Amino acid sequence: MTLVLVAGSTATAAIDGISAAGADPEAMAHTPAADLELVEYGDTVFAGEVPVSPTGCPTPALITRAVRELLEFDVVAVESGLMTRTAAPTVVVGEAPGDDLREPEPVPDAEGIFERARTLGRELSPAEVMVGESIPGGTTTALGVLRALGEPYAVSSSLPENPLSRKERLVESGLDASALDSGEADGSPLAAVEHMGDPVLPAVMGLAVGCLESGTRVTLAGGTQMLAAGALVRHFGVDAPLSLATTVFVARATPDLRRAADALDIELTVTDPRFDEGNHVAMERYCRGEAKEGVGMGGVLALADRSDIPMGAVRERIVDRYEALLGTGVRSGGP
Amino acid sequence: MTLVLVAGSTATAAIDGISAAGADPEAMAHTPAADLELVEYGDTVFAGEVPVSPTGCPTPALITRAVRELLEFDVVAVESGLMTRTAAPTVVVGEAPGDDLREPEPVPDAEGIFERARTLGRELSPAEVMVGESIPGGTTTALGVLRALGEPYAVSSSLPENPLSRKERLVESGLDASALDSGEADGSPLAAVEHMGDPVLPAVMGLAVGCLESGTRVTLAGGTQMLAAGALVRHFGVDAPLSLATTVFVARATPDLRRAADALDIELTVTDPRFDEGNHVAMERYCRGEAKEGVGMGGVLALADRSDIPMGAVRERIVDRYEALLGTGVRSGGP
Repeated sequence: MTLVLVAGSTATAAIDGISAAGADPEAMAHTPAADLELVEYGDTVFAGEVPVSPTGCPTPALITRAVRELLEFDVVAVESGLMTRTAAPTVVVGEAPGDDLREPEPVPDAEGIFERARTLGRELSPAEVMVGESIPGGTTTALGVLRALGEPYAVSSSLPENPLSRKERLVESGLDASALDSGEADGSPLAAVEHMGDPVLPAVMGLAVGCLESGTRVTLAGGTQMLAAGALVRHFGVDAPLSLATTVFVARATPDLRRAADALDIELTVTDPRFDEGNHVAMERYCRGEAKEGVGMGGVLALADRSDIPMGAVRERIVDRYEALLGTGVRSGGP
Repeated sequence: MTLVLVAGSTATAAIDGISAAGADPEAMAHTPAADLELVEYGDTVFAGEVPVSPTGCPTPALITRAVRELLEFDVVAVESGLMTRTAAPTVVVGEAPGDDLREPEPVPDAEGIFERARTLGRELSPAEVMVGESIPGGTTTALGVLRALGEPYAVSSSLPENPLSRKERLVESGLDASALDSGEADGSPLAAVEHMGDPVLPAVMGLAVGCLESGTRVTLAGGTQMLAAGALVRHFGVDAPLSLATTVFVARATPDLRRAADALDIELTVTDPRFDEGNHVAMERYCRGEAKEGVGMGGVLALADRSDIPMGAVRERIVDRYEALLGTGVRSGGP
């Protein structure tokens, strides 16, 4: 199994109150680069602090890294519109950060990104690829893409209280700015991305399509952003088997996830790492509904599960990682 | 063992008659990106044709890839001033291609490149690292750096007839443009690179210094460009053990190589892959003095040798790779 992680950025993340992928807006700009470094090296290198939410919830990259230390799968990092430098080795498929989804064309290079990622997907030759993402603000752009495609599903959030009606209003502004009706991009996935998405979505879509075209099994490792990527693959006309592996945190907060997966003919796996038994600050924020998913977390937890790695061992490793990187009990306060 | 390959470019390569790292100047611009892809994937992906010299000599990347298929070592690709896109995962330590060495400051960011590469070198944690390069025109900038440092040694060439006096004249022009006397950068390696080098040299130097600082053994895998990188490390004041592993093709063409290595306290390994016994166009041009070295070739041949991989198996794999990529006997003519 090879985990492909796509990291990028969108100006959409700077809209107040839609993302918890960083302690503050400045820190958030470094989150995707830091996430790649954490998974690759076990620590940040060029990217500054280990990302935490405003209340101290550690990035899901820490969980993905912990599982990687137990399972030693390969990682290929892909860059599509990073704003900052990363020391992780990356394949660059897109240069520019995405613009605010309320602009008419936030991802003008959607097709170029897709085609480069598709070429890369064909070139990767393991039997199975999992694709994860790191892009603050990504659930809002995922919602934008779902609406442009005419898919009625909701998205999750890295915040405990999902500002879904706020996201819906942002998406409406975006559709207006793009002179698009809801559902007008049905069957035109690259138009949906170009007008409403972020640079990570066409990269995930291209990787999935390229892998499927060359006979590699594909699991989208993540929550509703990956569901949107799966919808893009289906609207592109690819009907090969496709899986989505996410966490119980996303599934609990997204009641229509299974219905959406069924409608898109995507096999759904939901893994519960039983963080409530972890009894540690590194995990308790997840139990309260923060972060939930990202950086391939749902996929690698499913991999641990099917590889018979006990979840207790995963939780222990998460605590080790957390304490090595963030100290004991750091930022454990908050509501 | 991890092979770290540093790829970049310099406008110096566009000077007529100093490099054979491509069939023509336009193709040469793609050579470093293609070399990384060949080693990573066994074929080019974004980078167009497999690089060959004007007479059809295949890039040393093909040899490095062949050895990798037999030995399966890890590869980390580092970008420092590539002109074109590569599908190989890379860590970017330098953004801009180098300027012509006859300009006053061809590598203005030498120190930034060095420090980022040094940080990366500290982060890499295998017991042993080999560092190779791919930069057309690199022996000319290596000569420039050696002269700026006051080191009297000659450099090799990818051409069968080394245009050494032409290179010496170019270096003289470069020293004049930089208002530097020969030897004036003695003990100031980053000044030597800034005024006379290319973006790959400070990256190799930084990687070597960073690895040595964290206790990783370092072998510079290459010929006289790597000798220049070794000189930079010594002029930086690092006196830890350092090795240079190159091919018999470089050693034959560079009579003072051993003396230079001794003077710089660099342990020298010269490997003879006995390409004359290969009896194939993929190797015969090397026997006639073309290409000679590059993309870590000398290092990985030394690794094959000490791993008891028979050179006959290496040669067979080179023929397989050549025929898969370039067909049988393609471009076998020429003088």
